[in-house]
Amino acid sequence: MSEQMTAPRLLLASASPGRRRVLQDAGIRFDVQVSNVDEDAVLAAAVGQHGPQDAAATALLLARAKAEDVAAAAPEGTLVLGCDSVFEIEGIAYGKPHTEQVARDRWQQQLRGSAGVLHSGHWLIAAGSGAAHGMGSATVVRFAEVTDAEIDAYVASGEPLPCAGAFTIDGLASAFIESIEGNYQSVIGLDVSMLRNLLARHGVAITQLWK
Amino acid sequence: MSEQMTAPRLLLASASPGRRRVLQDAGIRFDVQVSNVDEDAVLAAAVGQHGPQDAAATALLLARAKAEDVAAAAPEGTLVLGCDSVFEIEGIAYGKPHTEQVARDRWQQQLRGSAGVLHSGHWLIAAGSGAAHGMGSATVVRFAEVTDAEIDAYVASGEPLPCAGAFTIDGLASAFIESIEGNYQSVIGLDVSMLRNLLARHGVAITQLWK
Repeated sequence: MSEQMTAPRLLLASASPGRRRVLQDAGIRFDVQVSNVDEDAVLAAAVGQHGPQDAAATALLLARAKAEDVAAAAPEGTLVLGCDSVFEIEGIAYGKPHTEQVARDRWQQQLRGSAGVLHSGHWLIAAGSGAAHGMGSATVVRFAEVTDAEIDAYVASGEPLPCAGAFTIDGLASAFIESIEGNYQSVIGLDVSMLRNLLARHGVAITQLWK
Repeated sequence: MSEQMTAPRLLLASASPGRRRVLQDAGIRFDVQVSNVDEDAVLAAAVGQHGPQDAAATALLLARAKAEDVAAAAPEGTLVLGCDSVFEIEGIAYGKPHTEQVARDRWQQQLRGSAGVLHSGHWLIAAGSGAAHGMGSATVVRFAEVTDAEIDAYVASGEPLPCAGAFTIDGLASAFIESIEGNYQSVIGLDVSMLRNLLARHGVAITQLWK
């Protein structure tokens, strides 16, 4: 099958276990090369040049920076995928809570009984040629009216502390998320249907990357 | 912790690997006891008694039948969960395609560029007491404009043949599903946030079942 023989190599520019699992579950062949991007510096440079960046623009900007960083050292023809996610509630972006107190406050004051928006950015570069395509999307996430006791148990589990938005949709917090509008995998960090669209713009069918 | 000591045992009345994986990912303690329900007979009896059953009613009816079957032989106090799913497009329910030809026709004529509705039913019984609560939900699933070549590759993978609706949202077909409106886990077969609601009606917090 000549299609299989000419299928390019996909390189994921991310250390995220969630993104790796999404690609594995989708049956995609890929390798990982983590980028060394200073995200704060990239964002500061963009703000200095273009003014404040909203959540959607930030996700796309950082996805592009990660992909470009890895593509610069990748073999010619390798397709390098950069992804980034920004979680926003009522116009305010929320990062990792890091501490139990911040995570508890977030759940009590912002998340329960409410909804947020996960903005994702995806950027796919063909190393060498420089051909690149990017796309973003937004997914609404609706949270249940969880009790204080449930919040305490969730915070005590440690799961929310290192997570942007203070929740993981594919972990314990799945019990607290009633519905979404958009793409589920993008909430984990990598929208496979968007990867399919980006691959198509590079002339590659995603089925060529199936194991 | 007295809460932990009095946490009831959860018994999943289903052989589905997808449902088991959803509970595992959500960190829930549970055991499996597959039901021996003759689904066609249960449905025929309901139709004979009440007339034609729509997709939502069918899912709830079969979820209840599975839960009741397993609860009849379960130790007192065990909480038995029955689940059922019916996939519908424009009012017509679609089961497993079984053959490659049926799967190909389904994707070419019904799924691509279109949307369907996954109706789920969940039923939770406390064995012995007979206390029972049921809930249903509907989730819209939107499919990409996939090519004939993509459909051929998907059908050749064998994945869609044993799946209701001819797709698995957590497998290869994730590349072909652009978005959903509703609960992702319910499309796999078990809505954890609905389980949380049903447990609460039995006076149990889902956090009591966390490992």
